[in-house]
Amino acid sequence: MEFFTIINIGGTIAFAISGTLAGIRKQLDIFGLLVIAFVTSIGGGTIRDILIGHLPVRWLLDSSVILLIIGTFILTIFLKNHIDKIDKTLTLFDSLGLGFFTLRGIQEGLAIQLDMSACIILGTITACFGGLIRDILLNEIPYLLRKEVIYATPCIIGGLFYFLMKQIALPNELIDLLTILIIFGIRLLAVKKNISLPRVD
Amino acid sequence: MEFFTIINIGGTIAFAISGTLAGIRKQLDIFGLLVIAFVTSIGGGTIRDILIGHLPVRWLLDSSVILLIIGTFILTIFLKNHIDKIDKTLTLFDSLGLGFFTLRGIQEGLAIQLDMSACIILGTITACFGGLIRDILLNEIPYLLRKEVIYATPCIIGGLFYFLMKQIALPNELIDLLTILIIFGIRLLAVKKNISLPRVD
Amino acid sequence: MEFFTIINIGGTIAFAISGTLAGIRKQLDIFGLLVIAFVTSIGGGTIRDILIGHLPVRWLLDSSVILLIIGTFILTIFLKNHIDKIDKTLTLFDSLGLGFFTLRGIQEGLAIQLDMSACIILGTITACFGGLIRDILLNEIPYLLRKEVIYATPCIIGGLFYFLMKQIALPNELIDLLTILIIFGIRLLAVKKNISLPRVD
Repeated sequence: MEFFTIINIGGTIAFAISGTLAGIRKQLDIFGLLVIAFVTSIGGGTIRDILIGHLPVRWLLDSSVILLIIGTFILTIFLKNHIDKIDKTLTLFDSLGLGFFTLRGIQEGLAIQLDMSACIILGTITACFGGLIRDILLNEIPYLLRKEVIYATPCIIGGLFYFLMKQIALPNELIDLLTILIIFGIRLLAVKKNISLPRVD
Repeated sequence: MEFFTIINIGGTIAFAISGTLAGIRKQLDIFGLLVIAFVTSIGGGTIRDILIGHLPVRWLLDSSVILLIIGTFILTIFLKNHIDKIDKTLTLFDSLGLGFFTLRGIQEGLAIQLDMSACIILGTITACFGGLIRDILLNEIPYLLRKEVIYATPCIIGGLFYFLMKQIALPNELIDLLTILIIFGIRLLAVKKNISLPRVD
Repeated sequence: MEFFTIINIGGTIAFAISGTLAGIRKQLDIFGLLVIAFVTSIGGGTIRDILIGHLPVRWLLDSSVILLIIGTFILTIFLKNHIDKIDKTLTLFDSLGLGFFTLRGIQEGLAIQLDMSACIILGTITACFGGLIRDILLNEIPYLLRKEVIYATPCIIGGLFYFLMKQIALPNELIDLLTILIIFGIRLLAVKKNISLPRVD
């Protein structure tokens, strides 16, 4: 529980930071930035909860998430000149968040007996759709869909490995940990090596 | 009840008018205009109802809302050359609608025991997200997020006052009325004085 | 049942194809194309299911839909040089899908006792909102709203005929069939004759 709480917080913070920074580049006002920070951070989980009918969505019931995002937002605004220098830290948190949120989505799907493909889709939505809504609000073609460094692909690969590891009956905690590490590792490697998917011409 | 019904109708009408006019500027066809009028008018309440799981969403169950919007839409199309002249009337209704819909969202949150921050967020979503979806459909960065005259800020301030007044135990009807008036007044003042939030550079 | 299953599959395939082709024009990567294919195909039904509270949304519970879309997507990628030549076949399937999905939405509305206007809106949303989300993701003003060949109008007319035919007590199967044919026919005619709705200036 502790382990996940830490990574969950890390992911939420990382996504709130990346949303805020993306908004600053678009010259939003202070409130616009806060909305973007929220949406980037909780958007994926919100869409997942709506799709599976787990309503009210969780962040409405847990104000600690709301306070965490507001706190992160305020810190990001004040520290933003330094944050550019910790770009690598951001990628690190963002990739961890990607791993955690994918796992979370898969587990939510399993909890209501969805099959593998639906679970992997839910995991990918949880991890990636906050950024997708962020890009829609900022009036851009979502990063997720453009020819950029792979972002959803690590989630899908990690999801496939999750079910593969279930098949060979590894202990649950180990499967969870390895799934996060696989997604984390592939995303970091992709950023470093600038790996993207091909286009169709 | 009567008092709220009147303002609810006023808000719905005002938002339907503003959606129609925004669509005309983008050269949509007649059907596109009607969709935009609908979305601007009921979008915020729809997203609120989805987030709290109050489904089916209310306007599906109450065709008087649908007819009201269609009627407003038709009138707006025929009277649009005159409506520009009543720009101030529009701002008036829009600001009243902002106050009412914020109050409505807060009350919906309280009805399912959400805490203060979640209620204020719900109120702001109810009041502002119709316009946000309108702007997404029109392929613009939402007004709400840009450096424009404050729009969501009055809702948040009004929401904070609502809970402050609860604390000092004013009668409920007075709190409701004052909340609407605060939001209404701040928005009108902001339009008049051209008040906007700062950007972060 | 068989009759509807066939058209349902046809509609899903047609919408998956049209989404994929729209994505290729925007130079998305492979994963982006797959997301667009999905969203175009199941977006309308997903929004309908959310609005009426029929959650989890159906495609999460039925992986055959997911596999059908993935299969269609892969075929489209490999056959795309030939697909341009079968543009008419695409319009044919797309128009059939429009008819079927409108009927499906109306029936879902009736199943929860919604009245006529709400049912027709649900039908139109089921048929048209997949394409609307596709256009939002591709950062365009939705086709549905622009001055283009009518797309939602046939759905609305078909919906009105559906309830008219109910009134004169035709057998249900005949009503269903005629509703699909009316929508199908009007859309095909509109494409052929380049019929669009007027703008408001």
